Amino acid sequence: MTTKITVELLRQLRQAMRNARYIAEPIQAYIIPSGDAHQSEYIAPCDCRREFICGFNGSAGTAIVTEKHAAMWTDGRYFLQASQQMDNNWTLMKMGLKETPSQEDWLISVLPENSKVGVDPWIIAADQWKNMSKALTSAGHSLVAVQDNLIDAIWTDRPSRPSTPLITLDLTFTGLTWQDKITALRSKMAERKISWFVATALDEIAWLFNLRGSDIEYNPVFFAYAIVGMSTIRLFVDAKRLTRPAVREHLQLDTPPKAEMRIQTAPYESVFTELQAVCASLGPKEKVWVCDKTSCSLMQVIPKAHRAPVPYTPLCLAKAVKNATEIQGMRMAHIKDAVALCELFAWMEKEIPKGTVTEISAADKAEELRSQQKDFVGLSFPSISSVGPNGAIIHYRPLPETNRTLSQNEVYLLDSGAQYMDGTTDVTRTMHFGTPSAYEKETFTYVLKGHIAVSAAVFPNGTKGHLLDSFARQALWESGLDYLHGTGHGVGCFLNVHEGPCGISYKTFADEPLEAGMIVSDEPGYYEDGSFGIRIENVVLVVPANPKYNYRNKGSLTFEPLTLVPIQVKMMDTGLLTQKERDWVNEYHRQCRETVGAELERQGRKEALDWLVRETQPIV
Amino acid sequence: MTTKITVELLRQLRQAMRNARYIAEPIQAYIIPSGDAHQSEYIAPCDCRREFICGFNGSAGTAIVTEKHAAMWTDGRYFLQASQQMDNNWTLMKMGLKETPSQEDWLISVLPENSKVGVDPWIIAADQWKNMSKALTSAGHSLVAVQDNLIDAIWTDRPSRPSTPLITLDLTFTGLTWQDKITALRSKMAERKISWFVATALDEIAWLFNLRGSDIEYNPVFFAYAIVGMSTIRLFVDAKRLTRPAVREHLQLDTPPKAEMRIQTAPYESVFTELQAVCASLGPKEKVWVCDKTSCSLMQVIPKAHRAPVPYTPLCLAKAVKNATEIQGMRMAHIKDAVALCELFAWMEKEIPKGTVTEISAADKAEELRSQQKDFVGLSFPSISSVGPNGAIIHYRPLPETNRTLSQNEVYLLDSGAQYMDGTTDVTRTMHFGTPSAYEKETFTYVLKGHIAVSAAVFPNGTKGHLLDSFARQALWESGLDYLHGTGHGVGCFLNVHEGPCGISYKTFADEPLEAGMIVSDEPGYYEDGSFGIRIENVVLVVPANPKYNYRNKGSLTFEPLTLVPIQVKMMDTGLLTQKERDWVNEYHRQCRETVGAELERQGRKEALDWLVRETQPIV
Repeated sequence: MTTKITVELLRQLRQAMRNARYIAEPIQAYIIPSGDAHQSEYIAPCDCRREFICGFNGSAGTAIVTEKHAAMWTDGRYFLQASQQMDNNWTLMKMGLKETPSQEDWLISVLPENSKVGVDPWIIAADQWKNMSKALTSAGHSLVAVQDNLIDAIWTDRPSRPSTPLITLDLTFTGLTWQDKITALRSKMAERKISWFVATALDEIAWLFNLRGSDIEYNPVFFAYAIVGMSTIRLFVDAKRLTRPAVREHLQLDTPPKAEMRIQTAPYESVFTELQAVCASLGPKEKVWVCDKTSCSLMQVIPKAHRAPVPYTPLCLAKAVKNATEIQGMRMAHIKDAVALCELFAWMEKEIPKGTVTEISAADKAEELRSQQKDFVGLSFPSISSVGPNGAIIHYRPLPETNRTLSQNEVYLLDSGAQYMDGTTDVTRTMHFGTPSAYEKETFTYVLKGHIAVSAAVFPNGTKGHLLDSFARQALWESGLDYLHGTGHGVGCFLNVHEGPCGISYKTFADEPLEAGMIVSDEPGYYEDGSFGIRIENVVLVVPANPKYNYRNKGSLTFEPLTLVPIQVKMMDTGLLTQKERDWVNEYHRQCRETVGAELERQGRKEALDWLVRETQPIV
Repeated sequence: MTTKITVELLRQLRQAMRNARYIAEPIQAYIIPSGDAHQSEYIAPCDCRREFICGFNGSAGTAIVTEKHAAMWTDGRYFLQASQQMDNNWTLMKMGLKETPSQEDWLISVLPENSKVGVDPWIIAADQWKNMSKALTSAGHSLVAVQDNLIDAIWTDRPSRPSTPLITLDLTFTGLTWQDKITALRSKMAERKISWFVATALDEIAWLFNLRGSDIEYNPVFFAYAIVGMSTIRLFVDAKRLTRPAVREHLQLDTPPKAEMRIQTAPYESVFTELQAVCASLGPKEKVWVCDKTSCSLMQVIPKAHRAPVPYTPLCLAKAVKNATEIQGMRMAHIKDAVALCELFAWMEKEIPKGTVTEISAADKAEELRSQQKDFVGLSFPSISSVGPNGAIIHYRPLPETNRTLSQNEVYLLDSGAQYMDGTTDVTRTMHFGTPSAYEKETFTYVLKGHIAVSAAVFPNGTKGHLLDSFARQALWESGLDYLHGTGHGVGCFLNVHEGPCGISYKTFADEPLEAGMIVSDEPGYYEDGSFGIRIENVVLVVPANPKYNYRNKGSLTFEPLTLVPIQVKMMDTGLLTQKERDWVNEYHRQCRETVGAELERQGRKEALDWLVRETQPIV
């Protein structure tokens, strides 16, 4: 990990902060948030502005530069990495520690009176702008929108915004045409008396139009905006992407359909002026639906009286509940993924004793095997391939300088997944290729008990995922143990591996209730710093349950595992499992053997099939 | 249950809404909230203004009267009761149903343009005022503070505000002098750079000064305010209450102590002008600590820049963590309470077959037996004594017209508690005096499993109570059952039976983390409408746990039952219990037998002792 030298860059940025070319009056501080204009979790290289200015390349962090100071806020996952990547012009602000000031408090403590704090209004979310602006104003300062991004102004070799070819998805993948989805959206708009909907999240736009791109690594999305009215559809996207006949036909650009299904396309950048035009024509009671996490720029175009901001848009909610075709696609994707992993683990079992397998080579092998499967597109996130103490670093990613060789003496954790045309996967298995210690087995078994407790939970319709989080921790808590991350996140269908509005976490209470058809991960863990890490993760589908009674006709739900990869029996202390838990393991392994076994057979992968059969023998 | 005739009252109120004696300009609507000026849960008769105007006397409900309409909002617990108590001048607004508009939406839909909506600013909490005002303003109306309460203006026989004698509590009950508490409060103020603290919650004031009153039934509090500065203490209370020598000595009113511990007393009503005076003298950076649920009147006295509103005041937080003396007092109170209940149940077992015991007579007998115990003060809430279908009404209170006779054929539920000088109790037991059905036993056992899951839970320090709520439901959920209330609430020590800031509920996420010394209830239930109700409630103390490991030295917590009343074995389907659960029941019953048995022996209550021994035989 290298440290970025930032003296000259900071000098240039501070100059820009006083440069009349960009701002009417000098600003005393400039905020550089982490995200892009769509509040994406993963971002394209051209949007890595915070990394450019300070060197820290983790997924979360905000930099603030004043005339004298430069500080960067990030959370516990990244304290070490950030301190290594930033030079001593930067102060690391460790979020979550009591002594660490908030960005607002820090700004107020260091700024001269009546200061102006600048930020790019396209990068900061509307809700964040509001909070920051309120805090600064109450201390006599002000938050100002700087239209030209000051990082871009000094970033001479900034990559250009990607404009990768668009992939069209037909009904066999999506189950619904984009016209169906527009119609459903409009009926929801009519229900709520909404005239316009502005789509800004990239995965929502990709889902709506049944299109995919590869503008952002791991996330099959493309840069775009959309504005949908009751009789118009506007799609803002780089014109070059619309030249391919397949795309033109898919969107019916040349064979104009009935007026209300006609898509008007316009350049990506023109969303601002087009939204202005839409807002100028609004009737007195007309409302515009928009996510409250949309950029400050777009939010401010909509007059306050016409805004209908929501934490989750109707597209986000519709996308989360997978239809039968999507569910079938997700099932197939997980079977193919399991084939690749069975093959991988069989290979590792043979190769590890030779001392030739490293964290990186294992991850590469996993990618190679996945890429042999039908409709493979790419990985869904950087593989976490970690052995021994590296396993305790929750967001570890092997680099040449940290790369360790796998052995028969240490616990190995692999958290990986892929994008297939029919679905997205995300699976974690923790294995030992020699003889695990009693303590490793004990903690693995507590994690397994937590995994099963969530996976087998039966709960009433309308239950929010966060109410299930403690089930995953109960066995660990009983022994005084815990893990410091949530238990599950929503998973897209050939879309982002992390998506809202549902999840299983002690932290989020803004989640929407779980519904049949939603897909989430179930991934409790345990991490012994400096020693080993354990995580057991399946992607699971929310399905109706049929318990004995049906209180107030509410109906019940439970989960069905989509991931079908054996959980290593060797790591279990079966004496700690209840009969119910042993039954769950045996039934799960029966499903793996049956479903994945058939596919391994079909693909003629004999060694992997032998491994699968061996690894799925019933436990008693 | 009688229906109140409100034609004439509404006519008078509407006249008052136009009367220049009370308001400069006529108002088009008047809001009558449920509470008093201290946001108390239970209120004194003089504050039952909503009941006076509409007839509905439940614990929660807001009435709004416009020139043409009168509507009252309450929740599911009270739909039936409210519909019976209100005449047809009133529209019942059933909160929680989709079709029911919010108060804001309803007002906006019925009001003429540019309307004025009035409310007594002493009764509405600051946060509620803010939300209501914002909604009305955005629709072109305005919320106005009406200083004279318009209900009081037409309420000719309104009772006067109670001014009951004050009880002084010495160190043997409180563990800390009021001077200790003032010192601790001031050190917290210094830590947060706060100059003044305004106490408005009655239980906080009672706790701070080690005083009790009986102004509000069931709640040993008295009407007062307090303002504490770094060197001054102001107590606002009816002067008549300060004449007794014991009170004067307790507060050191006649033997002036060092200046910063001198209490300046002033009439209850003068808090407003005194707070104005305090605020007029504030330095530019001085802050005033106040609960965000304080009345709009007092909040608005404090200039915005000087307000430091908090959801839970430092007194609320300090009061919640009981000291060793308070814990000892709570233990004693619960043993005495158990003595009374053992005696009650032994008596019921004999009397019920005679057909002479009713819901009301059972509740009366319970009160009589409790009143025989040392330092008994009164009940801590109205007893819920319910048999058969009445048990399914969660907040049932037996009235002559609903009173049922207990029999050997129906399930009986008794939720009751008392105030003793040394502590407050709250216990629910569900019993059958004949032979329960298999279904009654089954559901009772699920509830018991939930009760045990919470009571025996081990969890890390810093865990919020709401994370434990699902443990109480797991067994019910597995069978498709549930209950529609929270699992637990904080309990005061010779104070309110419901207190913040902790609790165990799926609803509240604003709760503070559980800490050793906090006391909460554990009360899952199951209610079969029209048939029976089950609830098993213990008051439990948060204590340190010592599991095998200690992750990151965080330490673990668990609960210790303070309530020591047998849980009826006859109602259990022991085959549904795990060995761990059976062990818990046996250990709990051993404690009941040992601790309460010794006290029954000491008090010479032979029959109750026999009953206790019989009811606590180990299960297998």
